[in-house]
Formats: sequence, C-alpha cells, structure tokens
Amino acid sequence: MQTKRVRCKICGSLKEGVSLRHYNLRVCLDCFPHFFKKRVQETVEKFKMFGPKDSLIVALSGGKDSMSVTKALKDLGYSIKAFHINADLGEVSKKSIEIVQNFCEIEKIPLKIVHLKEEIEISLEEISKILKKPVCAVCGMLRRYILNKQADGKTIVTGHTLNDEVSFILKNMIFWHDELLARQSPVLQEKEGLSRKVKPLCLITEEETELFCKLSNITYVSETCPYKSGVYEVFKKLVYEINKEFPGSIIGFYKGFLKRMNKFYCQSSEELLLQRCKNCGYLTTLELCSVCRLKEKLLKYKNG
Amino acid sequence: MQTKRVRCKICGSLKEGVSLRHYNLRVCLDCFPHFFKKRVQETVEKFKMFGPKDSLIVALSGGKDSMSVTKALKDLGYSIKAFHINADLGEVSKKSIEIVQNFCEIEKIPLKIVHLKEEIEISLEEISKILKKPVCAVCGMLRRYILNKQADGKTIVTGHTLNDEVSFILKNMIFWHDELLARQSPVLQEKEGLSRKVKPLCLITEEETELFCKLSNITYVSETCPYKSGVYEVFKKLVYEINKEFPGSIIGFYKGFLKRMNKFYCQSSEELLLQRCKNCGYLTTLELCSVCRLKEKLLKYKNG
Repeated sequence: MQTKRVRCKICGSLKEGVSLRHYNLRVCLDCFPHFFKKRVQETVEKFKMFGPKDSLIVALSGGKDSMSVTKALKDLGYSIKAFHINADLGEVSKKSIEIVQNFCEIEKIPLKIVHLKEEIEISLEEISKILKKPVCAVCGMLRRYILNKQADGKTIVTGHTLNDEVSFILKNMIFWHDELLARQSPVLQEKEGLSRKVKPLCLITEEETELFCKLSNITYVSETCPYKSGVYEVFKKLVYEINKEFPGSIIGFYKGFLKRMNKFYCQSSEELLLQRCKNCGYLTTLELCSVCRLKEKLLKYKNG
Repeated sequence: MQTKRVRCKICGSLKEGVSLRHYNLRVCLDCFPHFFKKRVQETVEKFKMFGPKDSLIVALSGGKDSMSVTKALKDLGYSIKAFHINADLGEVSKKSIEIVQNFCEIEKIPLKIVHLKEEIEISLEEISKILKKPVCAVCGMLRRYILNKQADGKTIVTGHTLNDEVSFILKNMIFWHDELLARQSPVLQEKEGLSRKVKPLCLITEEETELFCKLSNITYVSETCPYKSGVYEVFKKLVYEINKEFPGSIIGFYKGFLKRMNKFYCQSSEELLLQRCKNCGYLTTLELCSVCRLKEKLLKYKNG
C-alpha cells in the first residue's frame, strides 16, 4: 500500500500513513496495527465468530494473511493454537516450516505441524497425475480433510481475506454455482463431523494484511506455491483490478452479497444427501468421502 | 477473431474459418454470415422480440454492433428504418454520418438523422461543464430521450451485444443496483410513454459483430468517441478478459442471470412513483423529466 503524509484520524498527528479508501479513513503507520486488530475484533463480534474463552485452531500456512490473523488474535488475548499443514512441495514448503516455527516460538503460540504424506504416502505430484487433477485441487482437498480431523470439534480460524471472499463469490456467480454461493459465509456452522470455520479477516483486504505484517515485523512466505493454478487465481486478479479502479467497491459488494445471500440459497440435493463416510466419518454425499475414495483408487493403482 | 483452417459444421468443407467456443462450433468464413443471421433470427424468436410484420426503428450509431444488427434484420426481411443521432463531437461524429448515410443508401434503408443540438442548442461540452457531469453521461441521457420521442410507439432495436449486457449486469452486481438488475432484459416492454426496446444481439459477442462486418464488407466507425469514459468501460474490459480466460463463460453467465432475474427484482420506490413529465410526457420520478430539468437549468444559467 502506498504511504504518504496524512493527518491521522486516530491520534491526530500529521505523519507518514495510509489512506484506507474503503473506510474513508487516514491512519498513520504507528496507529495502523492497533486499527487493524480493532477491525479484527469488531469482525469477530459482528458475525458472532467466537467468545473470549473459546479455544481456537488457526490454520497457519505462513503467508501474510494467516500470519496476520494469528498475530492479531494472539495480541487480542484469545487462546489459540496454530496448525500448519506442509505439502513438502520443494523450497516454498521448506521455507514455510521455518517461518512458521520461528514465528510461533517468538509469539509463544503452541504449534502443530502435520505433513500431507502422513495422511497419504504418495506425493501430490503423483496423485495429480493418477487422478488427472491439478496438484492445487488435490492439495486443497487433503488440507481441508486433515484440518477438520485435527480440529477435533474446536473452531477453525482461517486467514481468508475480503479479496478471497469476493473472488470466490464472483467466480461462483459467473459460473452460477448457487449451492457454493449459499455457503459463502464469514461463519460456517458446525455440522455433524465438520468443525465450525470462521474468517476474521473477511472485511480486510490483502493490502492491509501485507502492511500489518510489515509494521509488526512479521516475516512471511511471499513466494507463491509453484503449483498454484486455476480459475480462482484469475478471479483474484480481476477482484484486485476492480478494487483498484473503484476503491472500496469490493467491501460494498461483499456486504451487499451477505444481505442478499438468502436469495441464492436453494436447498441442493447435495445438502439433503450429506452423510458420514463409512470409513472415516467425514461428511460426504456418497458412501465413502473424497479422501477415502482417493485412498482406495491409489491402492488399486499401486496393486496394478 | 483468430481464423484458422477448420472443418465447417455447416457445409462440411475444410477451409479458413473460426472456432466459436461458446457454441462449441467451427464455422468457415463463407458460412459465418448466414450463421450470424440465423442466430439473430433465433434470438428474436426466443425472446418474442417482434414479428415479421412489425415496423422497427433501429438505433444506428455507425459502430460495428448497430451496423451488424441493421444489416442482419434487413437481410432477414424485416421492415426497418434507421435512426441516427449525431452529437457533433468532432471528427468521429462527422465520420459516423458519412458511414451511416453510405450504408443506408447501398442497403436501401430509410434513414433519419437528428442532431443533438436540435434538442438542446448548447454543446455537450458546455452542458457537461455546467452540470459537472461527464459528457458521456449527458450524451447518453439525451440520446435515450430523443430516440424514445422519435420512435413514436414503434419498437426500438438497439445493437447491445452479449458483452454489453454482461458488462451492465456485472457493474450493477458489484454496486448492487438491484432496480437496474431487475430491468436488465433482452426486451424492455412498452410502458406509458416509453417505447418497447429490444436487443437482438444479446447472445452475440462483439468479436462476432466485428467478423460479420468484415465478411459483409461493411465499413463501420472503429474510432472510439473522444469522450467515452466511465465505470462501464472498465467493466467491458473485465468482461472481455473473463471471456478470454474462460471462453463461453459469459454466455452461460448471461443465460443463468436471465433465469435468476426475478431474484433481483424488488419493487423499488422509483418503479412505484414513475409518472409522466408535466412538460413533455416522458416518464420520470419527479414532476419534470431529466431532460426538461436540464433545459430549465440551462435557461437559468443563460440568464445568469
């Protein structure tokens, strides 16, 4: 975010700061981290995400968004544990572990690391070839599965930002995935076998998490995963462009969407048919969940 | 549109043609103009736009879209009259008149030309300064007003393409203009004082109108108006990018939108309060319509 000399709305002094167009607010760099955390707290309260005594699991990838939400919740006094899933995809994965470990040590946050290979032995690249699906899609599916399993009923906090949420919505509008639109909420309620998921950064942009990390001296993984791909990335770029052209437009769009969400809701057959996986208990529309089906396929493949 | 050697789905021969990703169809350049006109005819029927005996007024700007729709309807045997509104904005306007006159002479289409200054004497640039509104916005308002007045109850045909429609929808979704979304239809029904408006190109892209003009040897105004500006243009660019990244996505989005339109409909106060302008009879939410209010303002300004 571009900095310039501003009259800070919080402390009143004239110094280096930023202009936050979507709040119509100018804040100096000294006040920004406080403002950021206050904004997180307000979001948590607004959407009734959790209370001060709840224990939380934060999904910590090592990127700027998950680092920001972890730091903010820690400073706000919440009881958090960090959970890092490592995909062992070369240099970026190695760096992520280092960064996450250092950060949690400094911040005194309990950290659990799970490697994807603990769940499935074969590498993501190989699975991707066998299933003929992008690495990124397989990785996401496994991450959600492991996270849910490890959360053990605790609330899961993710670092999804306003940019992420709007990108999902726009993508699911362009392709009219009504059932996904109906589920696009800052809070995903607990369901039989699925933990509650909350997104305290849903009203905060990525430019803000970047600045927050910088001002809080947080080192984060800035390299993108070599396998990052797909439709979603295109929409993230479009959303970035829209917000650049019309500053503040995406927060208005998001708030307007939340008000209109019920319009998109149609009880899909998927919703009606959700049941527990016969093998592991994860929610699924079939007898076996996607991960157990994957494991079966891989076993068959292995045995020729 | 990029041409390449294709096996034409219509005539079966292997020759120079295009791949129309959103119909999943390959057509040679010889068959394309017939295909294009068939598509226009199907759209007219699908949305019950007009019958073979209706008399139509085509709004002919001179650009590729309005030229295409005029030529297609003429060749399909409809009874059309062309109507050109000239804004006298420099070279582009001069060129437009020439092009439109030549075209109508060759095609033997009755043409009526009206200059904006016949409605309002002061130049658009001056009005824009007085009202502190972009020239483009004032011009659009006056054009709609004149077109409606001249149509005298006949159905008005415009050259709005799929790209135009999707750009409007996306813009009105990002800013949640529900009342505009509710009106975004291929057919705008006649209302007390407002003519019926139809858009036979609403399922056709701009790449296709461009190719149709080229193959039909139609000269069109390719220069953009020097005053073209605003939010809408940004969305047109975005829509172009989306369709480039995901070929065929915008037609799916548009069709999905039309199915869901009623979800966006909320009877706005504007709808409820529409009445006839006390001065000219045009529909308005106030006592005087926007154009009569503009004229009053200009008169006051002139008299100091």
